[in-house]
Amino acid sequence: MRVALGQFNAVVGDLAGNAEKIRKIWAKAMESKVDLLAFPELAVCGYPPEDLLLKKHFLQDNRLVVEKLAADCPDKTIIVGFAESFRSNTYNSAAVLQKGRINKIYRKGLLVDYGIFDERRYFQPGTEPVALNIAGLNVPVTICADIWNIRWLSNFLKNLGQAQMIINISASPFHLGKVEKRQEIVGRCAKKFNCAVAYCNLVGGQDELVFDGRSLLADSTGRIVAKGRAFDEDLIIADVIPAADGTVQVKPVQPQAQQPTDPLDEVYQALILGTRDYARKNGFVKVLLGLSGGIDSALTAAIAVAALGPENVIGITMPSKFNSPETIADAEKMAKNLGIEFLTIPIEAILKQFDQALKGVPGWNSEGIAYENLQARIRGGILMSLSNQFGSLVLTTGNKSETAVGYATLYGDTAGGFAVIKDVPKTMVYKLAERINQADGRQIIPIDVINRPPTAELRPDQKDADTLPDYDLLDKILKGYVEQDKSAQQLVESGLPRDVVRRVIRMVDRNEYKRRLSPPGIKITPKAFGKDRRLPITNRYNSFDD
Amino acid sequence: MRVALGQFNAVVGDLAGNAEKIRKIWAKAMESKVDLLAFPELAVCGYPPEDLLLKKHFLQDNRLVVEKLAADCPDKTIIVGFAESFRSNTYNSAAVLQKGRINKIYRKGLLVDYGIFDERRYFQPGTEPVALNIAGLNVPVTICADIWNIRWLSNFLKNLGQAQMIINISASPFHLGKVEKRQEIVGRCAKKFNCAVAYCNLVGGQDELVFDGRSLLADSTGRIVAKGRAFDEDLIIADVIPAADGTVQVKPVQPQAQQPTDPLDEVYQALILGTRDYARKNGFVKVLLGLSGGIDSALTAAIAVAALGPENVIGITMPSKFNSPETIADAEKMAKNLGIEFLTIPIEAILKQFDQALKGVPGWNSEGIAYENLQARIRGGILMSLSNQFGSLVLTTGNKSETAVGYATLYGDTAGGFAVIKDVPKTMVYKLAERINQADGRQIIPIDVINRPPTAELRPDQKDADTLPDYDLLDKILKGYVEQDKSAQQLVESGLPRDVVRRVIRMVDRNEYKRRLSPPGIKITPKAFGKDRRLPITNRYNSFDD
Repeated sequence: MRVALGQFNAVVGDLAGNAEKIRKIWAKAMESKVDLLAFPELAVCGYPPEDLLLKKHFLQDNRLVVEKLAADCPDKTIIVGFAESFRSNTYNSAAVLQKGRINKIYRKGLLVDYGIFDERRYFQPGTEPVALNIAGLNVPVTICADIWNIRWLSNFLKNLGQAQMIINISASPFHLGKVEKRQEIVGRCAKKFNCAVAYCNLVGGQDELVFDGRSLLADSTGRIVAKGRAFDEDLIIADVIPAADGTVQVKPVQPQAQQPTDPLDEVYQALILGTRDYARKNGFVKVLLGLSGGIDSALTAAIAVAALGPENVIGITMPSKFNSPETIADAEKMAKNLGIEFLTIPIEAILKQFDQALKGVPGWNSEGIAYENLQARIRGGILMSLSNQFGSLVLTTGNKSETAVGYATLYGDTAGGFAVIKDVPKTMVYKLAERINQADGRQIIPIDVINRPPTAELRPDQKDADTLPDYDLLDKILKGYVEQDKSAQQLVESGLPRDVVRRVIRMVDRNEYKRRLSPPGIKITPKAFGKDRRLPITNRYNSFDD
Repeated sequence: MRVALGQFNAVVGDLAGNAEKIRKIWAKAMESKVDLLAFPELAVCGYPPEDLLLKKHFLQDNRLVVEKLAADCPDKTIIVGFAESFRSNTYNSAAVLQKGRINKIYRKGLLVDYGIFDERRYFQPGTEPVALNIAGLNVPVTICADIWNIRWLSNFLKNLGQAQMIINISASPFHLGKVEKRQEIVGRCAKKFNCAVAYCNLVGGQDELVFDGRSLLADSTGRIVAKGRAFDEDLIIADVIPAADGTVQVKPVQPQAQQPTDPLDEVYQALILGTRDYARKNGFVKVLLGLSGGIDSALTAAIAVAALGPENVIGITMPSKFNSPETIADAEKMAKNLGIEFLTIPIEAILKQFDQALKGVPGWNSEGIAYENLQARIRGGILMSLSNQFGSLVLTTGNKSETAVGYATLYGDTAGGFAVIKDVPKTMVYKLAERINQADGRQIIPIDVINRPPTAELRPDQKDADTLPDYDLLDKILKGYVEQDKSAQQLVESGLPRDVVRRVIRMVDRNEYKRRLSPPGIKITPKAFGKDRRLPITNRYNSFDD
């Protein structure tokens, strides 16, 4: 049996566009005489469609598209994910297209409701396993989480007889460490059922998520014998050959796609794809960002250029009297290195007028923190005005460490449409910058930008270190508190300094409102700020005893 | 048997504070010789605690608080909601406190995952019914949704024998029409099981939700014989008396609390409580808002004054050259009527400086929409600066109609912390304003403000009607499209004009990003923008065929 995995970039809601892509991939697969062609989970409507699934007309439209696909692609077998409305229920289903029609439907049995997933909000679990006979092979169909609980799956499939291959269609978003976990799951499944496993994953950016592709094929020993491209579309074709001894071999037809070898490269590619797809899928051609001469905006600019091309990125420096000649020069140098348009819009005169107007209010302090933050708010106003005028997307440049502790001005530097490095801790920002320079063999991000102690430059001689702990320490505390939900006590017991832990936790807890009012950004860690982490704004819980 | 319902205002995460309130209510109930005292669902930790439930130390702390409560309140029986960690699962549970300890635990059987609810994210469903014997009566314990599916409940309770009273502890948030539904559910349950029903609801604001209290007692004929206060704490006490003929009577000990008689009064009270609790529970004393002389900010100011007192509300008018003397005068009049502090901060000079700075960018249009919106962005910057300086909360003033179609400037008039009337359609804004004047017997909101055609005053002679359909028509389309998830076709078939329907739907769909970046506001309709309605930003679905 020849199997193909159509790992493609679906757009949520673009039923006709997704179907057109599927048709083209099918035509290409037919040239290679494929018996079975699988597409990802909910491929027809994109993943996750969220509350579109509550619209009856959306479910109807998505069904019609699958029926038309079946009619348009009558040869061999296609498995494609869609949202199925049946009686009063909705299912996360795989349609089996054969002979011009939907011949069978498998309904996902294991729904997930953790992290970014909300499947019970929409779907009922299926209760019936489905197996296909393809070229004499027994091929059970599964969807995503179905294969992650091997005990459940063994029981679910127990009456289907010995399988030669399990097909799994997935929409599994990227985070660091995810691909290793997937390989383990797919390998374990193959071994357990003594059959091949064909795992077809989605690719593409969708709001805060990036699906990274890297579809997998395993033989019956659990060995991964083929991997699809990372962060790109691919059509993976292989022959599945049962041997007389009961094992099942898998022989890829094409050479193995190159895979990222370093976690930093994975992150960089995820950020590029996430930025490109957010911009393109939302109809933006150009992006704008403030270039401060600091490392966060430098990294964001480099990612934007890699995502959209230098001709579509505009860097804007907006100096006040507190910006040093060095940082202004670095911003310009950065723009030159990247070959992007660069604008200078000084804000000192606007700042003076604002201060003048606010001086009329008793108690206004022309040297206080509100005055300092006004600079960020003016810059936000300028960027949003340019976005408004030219229809460009504003990228914000805050990293995960800042976002966690609220070291940002609400409606100032948080003003924009998309927060590229929102889930990248500051310590990783440095590593990514170095990696980009290294890969390019030159200082795209000037070494001074990397070496200068971080500063917001909102008052004379300001340093991040005046307000925040050292970033190495901060990121350790944040990883434990935010990503692993550890308690203050656990963090202190693990050797982190009590006072700093307490101060950081308070900052994280108090700034929930600021995060809620900031743009979405790309998830790269197991727990990002966004759909992954849903804390109330109004929340008096204090995990310190005192 | 004497039963009491401790309808109180819990704060999410405030374990110690909530326990202290529970102790005081218990002490008071004991004075009335109550046999059974019930508190709302998750009363110990507040509702909804969201991802606090993923923190093991939070679950432990919440358990310890319940154990201490049991020890502190040894007399009679208390039923109180808490989040129960048991083995590797978490349950939405009711602890039965008797003789100084947690004597029994009931685990919610029917979890809900629609609208604002995400219970499967956190909880496993319970599978064992629990009934108490209180003063010789058989009293099954249920939690919220358990009684909303009467078929499920009948089956679940079938082995417990004839009940004399079913207790239900709830956290049921307000929306228009909800209280009628609850009364129907409670009445139906009483009739079906031929027993009394004691329904204890939470009260208080929590981010976008307002729990409205109005706990209920029904006798075995399904008649509602007692209702707790609306939008306020209450202790409802009644005697439950089984008769020889198998019926169960319920005799309230105190007189019936007054109930709102008009839906507009319900909405007004919800907005007041929601605003007060958002401010107070988050530690804000004062609030700020822009007073434009228009009806939205007038209504928001009136609600803020009712919520927090005139001494804690500051109205700020920020005129540019486009604001008419009439609207400026109305803003001032409004402030005087309400007795609030009033500041005037003209923005013309700031606007000129901004324009001057932006003129350096080729293509900047000093008369275009981006220039117009700069006025809103400057106002947002001023309000946020004052918030930053004085620690006051900025209230935004956008209504539901505007929010739906994106008729607002992102990071301009949407800049703030809490959006009081975000879920109030414009047509209801007028009705509320009139109702407030009527109730006060004078023009708190000046009649000119109510009668003037709505305008954003961002350019000469601008009217909302230049851009938007008439609000009556707009609100009809929005109700169908947003609240009822109707398709364009259904709306057109119901008699709404095709072109306007299409235009409005496009505006709603395209402005998802703007809503995502705007502050939370109080839910008053069955479907509010917020946790109720979760649409992707990146979304190409178009329900028009063409």
